Amino acid sequence: MDIKTYLNEQRQRVDKHLGSLILDPLGPFSKHIEAMRYSLLDGGKRIRPILCLAAASAVDSGEDTVRRALPVACALECIHTYSLIHDDLPAMDDDDLRRGKPTNHTVFGEAGAILAGDGLLTFAFDLLSSPVSAAIADSDRIRIVQTIARAAGPLGMVGGQSLDMIYAGREVGYDELRSIHRSKTGALITASVLSGAIVAGANEEQEEALKTYGDNIGLAFQIVDDLLDVEATTEQLGKSAGSDLKSDKVTYPSLFGKETSRTMAREAVQEAITALASFDQQADPLRALANYIVERKK
Amino acid sequence: MDIKTYLNEQRQRVDKHLGSLILDPLGPFSKHIEAMRYSLLDGGKRIRPILCLAAASAVDSGEDTVRRALPVACALECIHTYSLIHDDLPAMDDDDLRRGKPTNHTVFGEAGAILAGDGLLTFAFDLLSSPVSAAIADSDRIRIVQTIARAAGPLGMVGGQSLDMIYAGREVGYDELRSIHRSKTGALITASVLSGAIVAGANEEQEEALKTYGDNIGLAFQIVDDLLDVEATTEQLGKSAGSDLKSDKVTYPSLFGKETSRTMAREAVQEAITALASFDQQADPLRALANYIVERKK
Repeated sequence: MDIKTYLNEQRQRVDKHLGSLILDPLGPFSKHIEAMRYSLLDGGKRIRPILCLAAASAVDSGEDTVRRALPVACALECIHTYSLIHDDLPAMDDDDLRRGKPTNHTVFGEAGAILAGDGLLTFAFDLLSSPVSAAIADSDRIRIVQTIARAAGPLGMVGGQSLDMIYAGREVGYDELRSIHRSKTGALITASVLSGAIVAGANEEQEEALKTYGDNIGLAFQIVDDLLDVEATTEQLGKSAGSDLKSDKVTYPSLFGKETSRTMAREAVQEAITALASFDQQADPLRALANYIVERKK
Repeated sequence: MDIKTYLNEQRQRVDKHLGSLILDPLGPFSKHIEAMRYSLLDGGKRIRPILCLAAASAVDSGEDTVRRALPVACALECIHTYSLIHDDLPAMDDDDLRRGKPTNHTVFGEAGAILAGDGLLTFAFDLLSSPVSAAIADSDRIRIVQTIARAAGPLGMVGGQSLDMIYAGREVGYDELRSIHRSKTGALITASVLSGAIVAGANEEQEEALKTYGDNIGLAFQIVDDLLDVEATTEQLGKSAGSDLKSDKVTYPSLFGKETSRTMAREAVQEAITALASFDQQADPLRALANYIVERKK
């Protein structure tokens, strides 16, 4: 399969759905909605929603299933976007550039950006419980809310960002690095895959396999992110290159060197693909996504 | 009934449950959990969780029902606490004192406080979908997630805080003031009452009556908050008195004067109590709460 064509199609599908879901930019809350839309509809890669859709397809390729998964995919992107907005704040990583555009707070001010993030996080749970996701059984919706809230919360993404801030500038080892990445990036990536699987009615064995897949591509994703921060230019990334170095953060290349880091990423991708052994060609997009994650240039 | 005794008992019940729910302060995320616990377990009035429990009791006073409502009550307090942490940030209202203690960011830094808020908001949805709330039917849990997410989100509490920031220092009229208060404070208060009603299996008519009750006590609550900001001392409030005036915010007393504002609050409470006409004495705590809200001194 041609992964670039696949990614483009899926991205367009997600973007179209996001644009229709997120609230009307008119009315009394227009400024707040505008700030949310500014970061949400800005041409991100949509990796998490695409993983959700691809996982749903791997379990059940029916068009109905994928359509049912769309609001879940969008909720995941809302949560990812909120995390970027808050991470970029002056009190956090203090970044000016994201996805090639000025960061939210440089446009809407700090208060506006904090609230845009809060709004997107809350809106994600609105989507998962609103009529737009009513085609998913209530018991599955509750499991999805739980999967995503757990992954995004204090023991997941938020906790990881907190560790990242606490450990910045300190000498930390591999255990801490693993712990930061697993929680900060890995948890939501695995949750993306799992929530797609839940929508599609995966059995326990399939969920287990997809969890292993998610954990491994999450790891590969983060290693490559660290590598790109060293290797790519700001223009290629659409965000400030070298920011890990600047903020004195421990990364895979700083601990293991670039070559070993790249090998570790490739090994993780291999493990991810091995975990999919029991799936037929419906899981090819997941396999291609795993390879894409390690080969990507931004 | 003696409202003070009732409030004390309920507050203790909520506090005990909150203390047991919110995560273990040990482990790798200890600093983050500590920041969450600092603001959550700080002796707040617990108005929203108590409203939730009282509404559940008004519909079905069985002890089982109230026990089922406890995690929902706690989720509401997590969301309320997150909103206080973020509202107090330097980029927002820049307050140093809350519930008689230094605000979260003065203790844990801005980044720590932003993340503590994010963590509490996400944890609320974790609670609503986790095994701790499994005694509530999945269809009811989804309705509760929807009720709370809608009330706390971009068209509710977050949107209202955004309006509050945008309108600060501008000349605005009654319509804008109503709109800010309905979204910023009123929506989550009504959602607290409604989510208790859903847990208890309220019928449509009961929900409608409780919604009217919630909307009116929300209004009364905000008017009294505005009055206390002018009349009470910082020591009485446990947060900075006169802060509305300082930040040049429009309030009920600034628009209508103190006497008229107090009359408006009393009228709203009367309407709230009238809405409960079809309920028997099981709704007495709700009636007493309505009166308490307008008579309170902090």
